[in-house]
Amino acid sequence: MIKAGIIGATGYAGAELVRILTAHPKAEIAAISSVSFEGKAISEVYPAFYKLNDMVCGDADAVVEKSDVVFAALPHGLSQELAQKCFDKGRIFIDLGADFRLESEAEYKEWYGGEYLNKELHDGSVYGLPELFRDRIKGKKIIANPGCYTTGVPLALAPAVAKGLVDTTGIIADCKSGVTGAGRGLSQNTHYPDLNEGFHPYKVASHRHTPEIEQTLSHLAGEKVRITFVPHLLPVNRGILSTCYARLKDGSTKEMIRAAYEEFYRNEYFVRLLPDGAAADIHNIKYSNFCDVSLHMDERTGTLVAVSAIDNMVKGAAGQAVQNMNILFDLDEKTGLDFMPPAF
Amino acid sequence: MIKAGIIGATGYAGAELVRILTAHPKAEIAAISSVSFEGKAISEVYPAFYKLNDMVCGDADAVVEKSDVVFAALPHGLSQELAQKCFDKGRIFIDLGADFRLESEAEYKEWYGGEYLNKELHDGSVYGLPELFRDRIKGKKIIANPGCYTTGVPLALAPAVAKGLVDTTGIIADCKSGVTGAGRGLSQNTHYPDLNEGFHPYKVASHRHTPEIEQTLSHLAGEKVRITFVPHLLPVNRGILSTCYARLKDGSTKEMIRAAYEEFYRNEYFVRLLPDGAAADIHNIKYSNFCDVSLHMDERTGTLVAVSAIDNMVKGAAGQAVQNMNILFDLDEKTGLDFMPPAF
Amino acid sequence: MIKAGIIGATGYAGAELVRILTAHPKAEIAAISSVSFEGKAISEVYPAFYKLNDMVCGDADAVVEKSDVVFAALPHGLSQELAQKCFDKGRIFIDLGADFRLESEAEYKEWYGGEYLNKELHDGSVYGLPELFRDRIKGKKIIANPGCYTTGVPLALAPAVAKGLVDTTGIIADCKSGVTGAGRGLSQNTHYPDLNEGFHPYKVASHRHTPEIEQTLSHLAGEKVRITFVPHLLPVNRGILSTCYARLKDGSTKEMIRAAYEEFYRNEYFVRLLPDGAAADIHNIKYSNFCDVSLHMDERTGTLVAVSAIDNMVKGAAGQAVQNMNILFDLDEKTGLDFMPPAF
Amino acid sequence: MIKAGIIGATGYAGAELVRILTAHPKAEIAAISSVSFEGKAISEVYPAFYKLNDMVCGDADAVVEKSDVVFAALPHGLSQELAQKCFDKGRIFIDLGADFRLESEAEYKEWYGGEYLNKELHDGSVYGLPELFRDRIKGKKIIANPGCYTTGVPLALAPAVAKGLVDTTGIIADCKSGVTGAGRGLSQNTHYPDLNEGFHPYKVASHRHTPEIEQTLSHLAGEKVRITFVPHLLPVNRGILSTCYARLKDGSTKEMIRAAYEEFYRNEYFVRLLPDGAAADIHNIKYSNFCDVSLHMDERTGTLVAVSAIDNMVKGAAGQAVQNMNILFDLDEKTGLDFMPPAF
Repeated sequence: MIKAGIIGATGYAGAELVRILTAHPKAEIAAISSVSFEGKAISEVYPAFYKLNDMVCGDADAVVEKSDVVFAALPHGLSQELAQKCFDKGRIFIDLGADFRLESEAEYKEWYGGEYLNKELHDGSVYGLPELFRDRIKGKKIIANPGCYTTGVPLALAPAVAKGLVDTTGIIADCKSGVTGAGRGLSQNTHYPDLNEGFHPYKVASHRHTPEIEQTLSHLAGEKVRITFVPHLLPVNRGILSTCYARLKDGSTKEMIRAAYEEFYRNEYFVRLLPDGAAADIHNIKYSNFCDVSLHMDERTGTLVAVSAIDNMVKGAAGQAVQNMNILFDLDEKTGLDFMPPAF
Repeated sequence: MIKAGIIGATGYAGAELVRILTAHPKAEIAAISSVSFEGKAISEVYPAFYKLNDMVCGDADAVVEKSDVVFAALPHGLSQELAQKCFDKGRIFIDLGADFRLESEAEYKEWYGGEYLNKELHDGSVYGLPELFRDRIKGKKIIANPGCYTTGVPLALAPAVAKGLVDTTGIIADCKSGVTGAGRGLSQNTHYPDLNEGFHPYKVASHRHTPEIEQTLSHLAGEKVRITFVPHLLPVNRGILSTCYARLKDGSTKEMIRAAYEEFYRNEYFVRLLPDGAAADIHNIKYSNFCDVSLHMDERTGTLVAVSAIDNMVKGAAGQAVQNMNILFDLDEKTGLDFMPPAF
Repeated sequence: MIKAGIIGATGYAGAELVRILTAHPKAEIAAISSVSFEGKAISEVYPAFYKLNDMVCGDADAVVEKSDVVFAALPHGLSQELAQKCFDKGRIFIDLGADFRLESEAEYKEWYGGEYLNKELHDGSVYGLPELFRDRIKGKKIIANPGCYTTGVPLALAPAVAKGLVDTTGIIADCKSGVTGAGRGLSQNTHYPDLNEGFHPYKVASHRHTPEIEQTLSHLAGEKVRITFVPHLLPVNRGILSTCYARLKDGSTKEMIRAAYEEFYRNEYFVRLLPDGAAADIHNIKYSNFCDVSLHMDERTGTLVAVSAIDNMVKGAAGQAVQNMNILFDLDEKTGLDFMPPAF
Repeated sequence: MIKAGIIGATGYAGAELVRILTAHPKAEIAAISSVSFEGKAISEVYPAFYKLNDMVCGDADAVVEKSDVVFAALPHGLSQELAQKCFDKGRIFIDLGADFRLESEAEYKEWYGGEYLNKELHDGSVYGLPELFRDRIKGKKIIANPGCYTTGVPLALAPAVAKGLVDTTGIIADCKSGVTGAGRGLSQNTHYPDLNEGFHPYKVASHRHTPEIEQTLSHLAGEKVRITFVPHLLPVNRGILSTCYARLKDGSTKEMIRAAYEEFYRNEYFVRLLPDGAAADIHNIKYSNFCDVSLHMDERTGTLVAVSAIDNMVKGAAGQAVQNMNILFDLDEKTGLDFMPPAF
């Protein structure tokens, strides 16, 4: 059994890791930690886990000590030192924060305000979006697990961009996220009466996931891509729907687009390319690691509308982190992740 | 007192007309009709109205007979004959359906499949979006009251398009509507468990409101405008948020955009241009006739993101219809419509 | 025009007072105050009010100075000193907190832990539930405005208890409240993802509204009444549904119960006794000052099930406070409160 | 592998059986049927299952033919003939409808209006609530799987009633159910805008689950028990919370109650007796087979308030049906049912 540790277990991503790893057939949770709830059982914080996982939160060092693989679900900026510790002790480090996601230190400074403590560590890390970069992940010791929007948008657009079927300028990603994406911390805009029956965009064209999405699309395109990214807050618990707009290049047809997606995702268990006429819906992927993708063509304006739906806490966080662990430990990628989404 | 009649009073738009007109200080409801509930009190269909309006639904002819102004909230295709009757009897006809909205009969055929029964009637009608076409409304006898998306999108973009500050190609309107927009009729996708905790686009780039929005924007631009329009269904009762994307023309600046909007909407009571930094939210306009507009600039890609929020049943239907009535009867435009949105 | 002041205007009850009083035809808001937002406009806190009420929050003393009637929407325990100040200056004081609600100082100590600062002030105050105690309200200077549950439960049971048709022992009030009842302050159990798709009881048989409900029912019964009161938190913004159970006394019949309610509420505009077969629903009274009451008989067990629905922020707080103001200033009781509930 | 068949697979209970059985390690779905969707894939009806279970709906006879155990999720009244067929062919029949639940044919006639086609079949069937009647289930061929309310209410009250700690008269069950309990069929009261932000009781003291709950409690009490049962419709997808009230008998104490529950449920994996101070919440058992029970004492009135929370589609329907299958096939009772509820 793989010994897995979770640092920051009482945040939402941490709790979702607890849910998934408690049931994983090839891993066991060796230790969990939480700064806010040290000494308390995870099931006191989340009574849903009562009697199923009553582990007590300890400190981060104990987690590093006891684990083969350490998952860190921490606020941005707190992962670099931990990564160093894990690296020094030979632990695999899977970071659900942003510290290792951007390849350019300049962009990291611009968007997050921090610095790279150890450049070598960053060079040895990898961006863990398996469907796009699986080959680079194997054998790595530090995994930058993508954020939620940064999984949904690239998976919606990847085949079209990689095959050069759409313009790489003018791409728009209009995204709508469930509230768990904002975390467990209290804030006025996630106070029930403020959000319920409401809907609004936030951080318009200034969200920190922008450079991360652009980095991925640029790799696929082989050139620098800039996008307009506007997230909105949905009054639902889980799910991100990304409605992405890209202009077709001259000569690109509906059929070419569809063929490109079918080939690109043929062997991807977790990406479900929907049949023509269907539309991706967060309703259909809740609590699962699937990414549903639907394709729509606006022939009047020559625009591809590619829509993806993921569960932001699973494929957009904890599920993808476990998928990365499975790759690193040579397990079938869907081990412990093959739960069906409920129908309602 | 103006005698107002409502045909199709038991649908959602009809019921909202009942709510507004029952309290209108210068109008009284003379008669209401409903095919499905003839002989029943409106308050049997909507118990919220119990003891406040217990009028019994009669037939359409009686409504025409007793009213100075007839509101029709009917499925598309049923209004033309009614309009003729009203016209012949000298009644003002305010149509909440689509029959008189498109100026081009060809477009009407293409998108709705019907024909113009009496071309003269269409020529004498007017598109009732007061903030954009107020001067043309006065004195008319047939008013085509705009649909919900077709109010929200143009109000978000009008100043930028009218002043020529943005490209008129490549405009994208990504819209999200509350469920009442789908009406009172039952359907699987408005069945509670199917919609709740769900979110998806529908009629992608093929919704009937497309040509109507284009018609309005083309009038403002002075040239034919085509847009990509994608509606989504939100799990909330009321409200439409329209996130609109347009590329800035060379030379257009953030300041020019803001100045254009301020001038354009300076005297418009029902359009609230939000201060810089704020974002439109359907939470803030519910149950009111206001349209909130917020402006955001993506300077990295030269894109204007203009966002509007309306209550689809008020400014997007019944409220705007009463606003048109007020204009036609020389009342202050906000008579009976000056209710504050609740804070939560 | 009555000059009305609001202390604690940025809490939910305060904001609802702002909404109602801004539109009141016989009153104007003279001043508002807020400790947390002093110096800020109310519309910065609640953007729904933007351009409709942009008054700036000052301090409480200024409110007392400028007003004929002072509404206080403060946490419990902060009203007594304010009441004294208002009394000394000849202002009418309408308290939406609990400080003046209990007639017994012993009960106040037991449930709230505080003391009566000035016993005379308490003796001169009145419990402002107009439908039950209208005659006592006129002429008073200090009004204890009832809490939300303490309006809904007594209005469901009053006629049966007052006429002696049910046992006064064994009464059960199973209540379900929308989230605004918990106020604007942040807490984990009103964090959106924690409450959404959840439902649970809280403060079971230990909620502070218990003695207040018992006090009212005891007045009606002419003897000491004790009840079992269990509140639950509903994932909706507004509304309280109270399902109340009382055993029929020997000889009481369904018809006698119905007749008692009809007589009791015959002249009450704000209480709508629903016809047989209908069930009260919070859907039908939202944003209004109405209390809907439905009656159901379990003939198998001889139990009356009386159900009431109110909007906790209107009839359960701000609306009732304005109703009390209307009584005190000899206005028609429904002045500024006769808004129809929306149908959806 | 057990060959399991599902008749009525496209209703909500049927679809939940598909979700659970597709992942069951010791069973496989042999065939499914649906009258409304014969010839269609289950994943066309529920796109959440796309690529995970794309079985095509056939007819009921084929299901009986191919299966060792047949689950029927049909409207009431349609199961008796099927049960006979299964019995004749030696199939085990697990009925999620009501046809075999009531032991008294007279009660069946009174509440459902039907008759017993074959009395012997009824005598050979068993009521499948494992925590209360496990011993009787083994070896049976026809299982009457309890309804949702009829699982939640007895599990909340069983230990107190069985040990004689509470009066068996005057018991009240105030229940609140998520919308999936009303099924997939369309109706006005499950139309999204009618239910959302609403809450109301229905079938007050006249719901068909009443005699079934009474039958179970009577078995436990050893005497005829009558209850007052009032269900309400909650605006959430899943979950039933049952708040049950019973008067303590003289001499019963809080400690005795707690001890009785601890002993009664000591070995029950699926019943989680919560610690003192906690309250059952549907939030914590969603998508799982658990029943959470919390105990509260109103010492002022001598009333036990026992609260249970179940997922109406799992422990209240499909999960319990599979639990019964596990018992019948000598599997560990939690096989294929040990999924953790998500924390949010």
